[in-house]
Amino acid sequence: MDDPYAFRLDPQLEKDTVNIADWHLCEVRLMNDSRYPWLILIPKVPDIAEIHELAEEQQHLLLGESVRLSKALDQLFAPHKLNVAALGNMVRQLHVHHIVRFEGDASFPQPVWGVGDAVPYDADALRETVKGLQIALDLL
Amino acid sequence: MDDPYAFRLDPQLEKDTVNIADWHLCEVRLMNDSRYPWLILIPKVPDIAEIHELAEEQQHLLLGESVRLSKALDQLFAPHKLNVAALGNMVRQLHVHHIVRFEGDASFPQPVWGVGDAVPYDADALRETVKGLQIALDLL
Repeated sequence: MDDPYAFRLDPQLEKDTVNIADWHLCEVRLMNDSRYPWLILIPKVPDIAEIHELAEEQQHLLLGESVRLSKALDQLFAPHKLNVAALGNMVRQLHVHHIVRFEGDASFPQPVWGVGDAVPYDADALRETVKGLQIALDLL
Repeated sequence: MDDPYAFRLDPQLEKDTVNIADWHLCEVRLMNDSRYPWLILIPKVPDIAEIHELAEEQQHLLLGESVRLSKALDQLFAPHKLNVAALGNMVRQLHVHHIVRFEGDASFPQPVWGVGDAVPYDADALRETVKGLQIALDLL
């Protein structure tokens, strides 16, 4: 029988994103929007909406995984800027965006949320992007 | 003589915000926009644009101060959601937004950036808000 208290990925996050890796605290997922390299960390802890609701040890794990992801994105993409954000206005389940930004991207210098519509990767591009990210993340 | 390598608050941040407290790593400042309780943590470290560029010890201090601020905002305002974000598309100096969000506020459920214009506090409201925040933050 399913454990009713177990972590379950929010259905909206599941629909919009693709699994890249399972780390100690977080699931690492890619937003299916080819306009930006856009990764999301989701702590696999049930019923958490805010970083400060995590146990202190989990907060430090989240920080470590966020820094690991940020460094990998930095090496892979050499961004103008990273946007790192836990908003949750639409989806309450705690999730931390890590978005690679370039001057001249689809919404720069504005934030990405609510600007235009997502442009899903085609099947080949998605496969290659996922593979490239998995290789880069394994190295860090 | 001024130390050319010392931390200096970005002039745009200085113009838009008001000092609330000086913590070990960060300056705590209030955005002068009465539409949202909107606090910003700015690590007092020169030439840093990204969280992962901080030394590991500084990263952990930032996390601790972010959690302390978030808990105080939670107690003071009982928000629907906090938005915690390091964007930096406009101002590169690392600064971490902590924005108290309510359903029905001036931009909910969208993020606050780039939506409408800031509504500065009047002098009395600013004084009271700063004082209320300073008392709440001292307690945590």
